Amino acid sequence: MTLTLSPNQVQLKNWPGLIETYRPYLPVTEATPVITLQEGNTPLLPVPTIAQIIGKQVQVYVKYDGLNPTGSFKDRGMTMAISKAKEEGCSAVICASTGNTSASAAAYARRAGLKAFVIIPDGYVAMGKLAQALLYGAEVLAIEGNFDQALNIVREVADHYPVTLVNSVNPYRLEGQKTGAFEIVDALGNAPDWLCIPVGNAGNISAYWMGFCQYHADNRCDRLPQMMGFQAAGAAPIVEGHPIAQPETLATAIRIGNPASWNLAIAAQQASQGSFSAVTDEEILAAYRLLASEEGIFCEPASAASVAGLLKVKDQVPTGATIVCVLTGNGLKDPSTAIEHCNNPFKQGIAPNIEEVAKVMGF
Amino acid sequence: MTLTLSPNQVQLKNWPGLIETYRPYLPVTEATPVITLQEGNTPLLPVPTIAQIIGKQVQVYVKYDGLNPTGSFKDRGMTMAISKAKEEGCSAVICASTGNTSASAAAYARRAGLKAFVIIPDGYVAMGKLAQALLYGAEVLAIEGNFDQALNIVREVADHYPVTLVNSVNPYRLEGQKTGAFEIVDALGNAPDWLCIPVGNAGNISAYWMGFCQYHADNRCDRLPQMMGFQAAGAAPIVEGHPIAQPETLATAIRIGNPASWNLAIAAQQASQGSFSAVTDEEILAAYRLLASEEGIFCEPASAASVAGLLKVKDQVPTGATIVCVLTGNGLKDPSTAIEHCNNPFKQGIAPNIEEVAKVMGF
Repeated sequence: MTLTLSPNQVQLKNWPGLIETYRPYLPVTEATPVITLQEGNTPLLPVPTIAQIIGKQVQVYVKYDGLNPTGSFKDRGMTMAISKAKEEGCSAVICASTGNTSASAAAYARRAGLKAFVIIPDGYVAMGKLAQALLYGAEVLAIEGNFDQALNIVREVADHYPVTLVNSVNPYRLEGQKTGAFEIVDALGNAPDWLCIPVGNAGNISAYWMGFCQYHADNRCDRLPQMMGFQAAGAAPIVEGHPIAQPETLATAIRIGNPASWNLAIAAQQASQGSFSAVTDEEILAAYRLLASEEGIFCEPASAASVAGLLKVKDQVPTGATIVCVLTGNGLKDPSTAIEHCNNPFKQGIAPNIEEVAKVMGF
Repeated sequence: MTLTLSPNQVQLKNWPGLIETYRPYLPVTEATPVITLQEGNTPLLPVPTIAQIIGKQVQVYVKYDGLNPTGSFKDRGMTMAISKAKEEGCSAVICASTGNTSASAAAYARRAGLKAFVIIPDGYVAMGKLAQALLYGAEVLAIEGNFDQALNIVREVADHYPVTLVNSVNPYRLEGQKTGAFEIVDALGNAPDWLCIPVGNAGNISAYWMGFCQYHADNRCDRLPQMMGFQAAGAAPIVEGHPIAQPETLATAIRIGNPASWNLAIAAQQASQGSFSAVTDEEILAAYRLLASEEGIFCEPASAASVAGLLKVKDQVPTGATIVCVLTGNGLKDPSTAIEHCNNPFKQGIAPNIEEVAKVMGF
């Protein structure tokens, strides 16, 4: 007996992915082949310990986008970009990436039967992300340069050769990413007071703002959040007001000196009366450890910038506010940083008997 | 303005985790403090390339449990085990683990405010899993022995000291894990013909069978699947009919020589007219690469045993069957295996200019 997912059951019981769920809000038609890995629908989790640190009866949630199919928010944009690339008849895609985009592009491209090229900055991509791009079957080219140089190159390659650019300068990417805002409003019943978000290439803060504005215009929420963007201190061009030639941070996913969506991000911050701030690598690591060891949530270092930033500006939080921090990627993307910075001794070489184990446990 | 998730909105819009969703089927009461990371609700994804390889008009889906909060199916059992441990007033938990259980136990225990001890076999735990346990704040003890020895030790420790055992010999674990079967039936509208599943400690196949039987008794499905269990050839005690003293396989999550739930697994196989088979590491790796590069799904090597097994016994598949393969863990748990076995050259040291990049791309 053959069973298929009937449309009705899909809607009721099995999340069909972003495009089917938010079709009226997205630039797709019946002619668009939907390439999905059932991305989206990620947890919005309360983080009571962080709320308690802030006090003032605030409610704090994290939007844990690391539980997307390839482990980051990039899948929200990639389901759109690859579906549209497939619709347009392209046969290969290319992107520059600090790692998350390459993993996502590779997975969706291969599922669509397209070839995927990814250009990464040599030595600055976390191990899990490299593993993904390779196993998904992308052609991975590591250049002797940083992300900003890689982005310039792929723009030129896409201009001159038959490959479609799927970086966030591809307009369909931000269309898909805006659904993160939809899900938050759908879960809370309204927009939060603050949306705290890491800022690297600045596409995601722009996409979230677009999503909140569209839902607001459609009366799905009766207010808009203040957009609070956080950059790593060594890679904070928007905070400093000029591009950074040699961005440095252990939060490799936001190690970007000249964001492609700079102007859109500024527009979102201004229209929402939000702000941009920088957090140090030490502050990022402290938030990263706090999320894991107190809330049970393992994100990648760049993601923790949103929580580090919230804690840094906690004196500005309005009493009773509802705050959502976006956690953009899964901690498993970067196991080396976890092992190196966990502050937790790992006890090895213990003899396999109860006396020895009990002694090491402190009994 | 303070927003909280109202019960109604939670049910409609934000998955509240397994315990709230399947409360009538689980041994919890109003007195049970629900410790959740919104586990479950994982994708049931069609895998058309694999279906095509089998032919016979079969429908094949994977249940991608690697998208649980800590990256494996263990979270289904751990939300139950830790909630019950908290209800019973315990202050510390312990487990033996090939890595996935330790990550899950650490995350849920820390979220509940409990101490977590994990005993792992030294040198046989994938990097991502070790990173998780450490960052979540567990006390990690690596013994000079294998999983089976570690399990014997933690059973004794839990008997003699004030710590609660959360291995799958804890009965609440299988209660939580059975919800995987519920979700499959809820998504498909009935049970599949075959359920293909990796078998290590044999708890999960037993839990799935219990779930299908309970849903069947409750008229949520009108049939039961055949349970097809697959072990790694170097660690196949159930297939061989005797414990394996030195189990060996690169699928470390199922590197177990003397499964705790052996009898339950045999009962499930016999009652369902299923079977147990062994797959080699080479077959596991081939399925692992196929899932990633053709379907866009990155699972850990042990998970791919279910697909490797299905492909191995494909001549026995009934025409028109609906088959679900359980993918138990996220590929990001084990990035080293992906990089080592991807069969995909990684091109490094490329000069950062378009001519050089285009040349390497083959233009």
